[in-house]
Amino acid sequence: MFGILYLFPVTLSECPLENVLPEYNRQLLLPIRHFIVEDVRTARRFLRKADPHFDIDGCQFYTLNKYTTPEQISSYLNTLKTGLDMGLLSEAGCPAIADPGADIVCIAQENGYKVVPLVGPSSILLSLMASGFNGQRFAFEGYLPVEKENRIKAIKRLEQRSYTEDMTQIFIETPYRNKKLLEDLTTNLRPQTRISVSFDLTGPEEKIRTLTAKDWKKDHTELTKKPCIFLIYKA
Amino acid sequence: MFGILYLFPVTLSECPLENVLPEYNRQLLLPIRHFIVEDVRTARRFLRKADPHFDIDGCQFYTLNKYTTPEQISSYLNTLKTGLDMGLLSEAGCPAIADPGADIVCIAQENGYKVVPLVGPSSILLSLMASGFNGQRFAFEGYLPVEKENRIKAIKRLEQRSYTEDMTQIFIETPYRNKKLLEDLTTNLRPQTRISVSFDLTGPEEKIRTLTAKDWKKDHTELTKKPCIFLIYKA
Repeated sequence: MFGILYLFPVTLSECPLENVLPEYNRQLLLPIRHFIVEDVRTARRFLRKADPHFDIDGCQFYTLNKYTTPEQISSYLNTLKTGLDMGLLSEAGCPAIADPGADIVCIAQENGYKVVPLVGPSSILLSLMASGFNGQRFAFEGYLPVEKENRIKAIKRLEQRSYTEDMTQIFIETPYRNKKLLEDLTTNLRPQTRISVSFDLTGPEEKIRTLTAKDWKKDHTELTKKPCIFLIYKA
Repeated sequence: MFGILYLFPVTLSECPLENVLPEYNRQLLLPIRHFIVEDVRTARRFLRKADPHFDIDGCQFYTLNKYTTPEQISSYLNTLKTGLDMGLLSEAGCPAIADPGADIVCIAQENGYKVVPLVGPSSILLSLMASGFNGQRFAFEGYLPVEKENRIKAIKRLEQRSYTEDMTQIFIETPYRNKKLLEDLTTNLRPQTRISVSFDLTGPEEKIRTLTAKDWKKDHTELTKKPCIFLIYKA
């Protein structure tokens, strides 16, 4: 029997694990000793939070980031062949959603290993739930281009799609550029198009607001330093 | 002070609440007595599962379905004005994602009420995590058209977008048509395009498999009776 690859979400922001993770995840996590992670330090911290007595020194960590070669990635899953279960941990939120974990899952699927995804916080889902926008049709676009002309083109293309395809458009930005992105949105969207901004989701400073582009211009909410997610939708 | 509108996810399939819901949700749920729900019977059953001693007879339920008028929807949130918190419950998974709850959240946002989304199971996110497909860019399309010609057109359009925009395409079907949809996909997609099928997510019969369209043709997995979600992605 092969082992199972469990996909373990972690917290998104500063909060106790039980706020955002089911107890079941913890029960599945405790016996596992082989973890594929982006950063070993963050992973150790998470395991210690899950159980202060976790045998972290008895664990093997396989690092997955932009420097990991395809050969290394393929070899990581050899542990499953020996019948032992493995855990894939993300840096924040759900693994394989906006992180390199998808490469590992892809190989697991190609090899017919059993993959079990577990419930946890996703800024995409939480922000969509709280936006009031269309949740029957939506798209996540990742980051918008940084270069000005391409960025404005992207903003206008996404706005257009929210009107013609009735689809909520979701995207993210690095914290220090949040304010700039909101300015670019309010400047380039039609005044009545709606923007929802979710700031520090599940964290102590969580703020979620939906306003028209026009009304966001008058708003002075501080958006720096914490992760933010942006949604736009037709008037 | 106005009350808060909490968005409470429920289970997706047959499983204990602690498998898919954080304990925090339960703690927030217990003191609430005003619930906006699609079906009162399902809601009562959920509250009883959360706490066998839940004072269900002391609760007020506001029904939200296709027969609810916009006037009723607006009046539902009046309770928040009195300072009492309310809960929005979905029938399965996360509220306001693929259900009418988004209308309520939209009105809450327009009125400046605080909306707090809580973590829970989403077949969209779980299936994407476990597919191995691109989680940096993806779109959820809801249901495909039922009429044959439009359905084939939709399948080809989504496949095209997975190639040209490098975007995972996600859609759902009613359980009794799952088998037919998989046939339509394997018949109309290029042989190398990949299809991931997630069946009974979080439930006792959970199955998640990613294969090429060509390989799915040889597969005889039984897909009826339980909810399924389908993802396609370029070769």
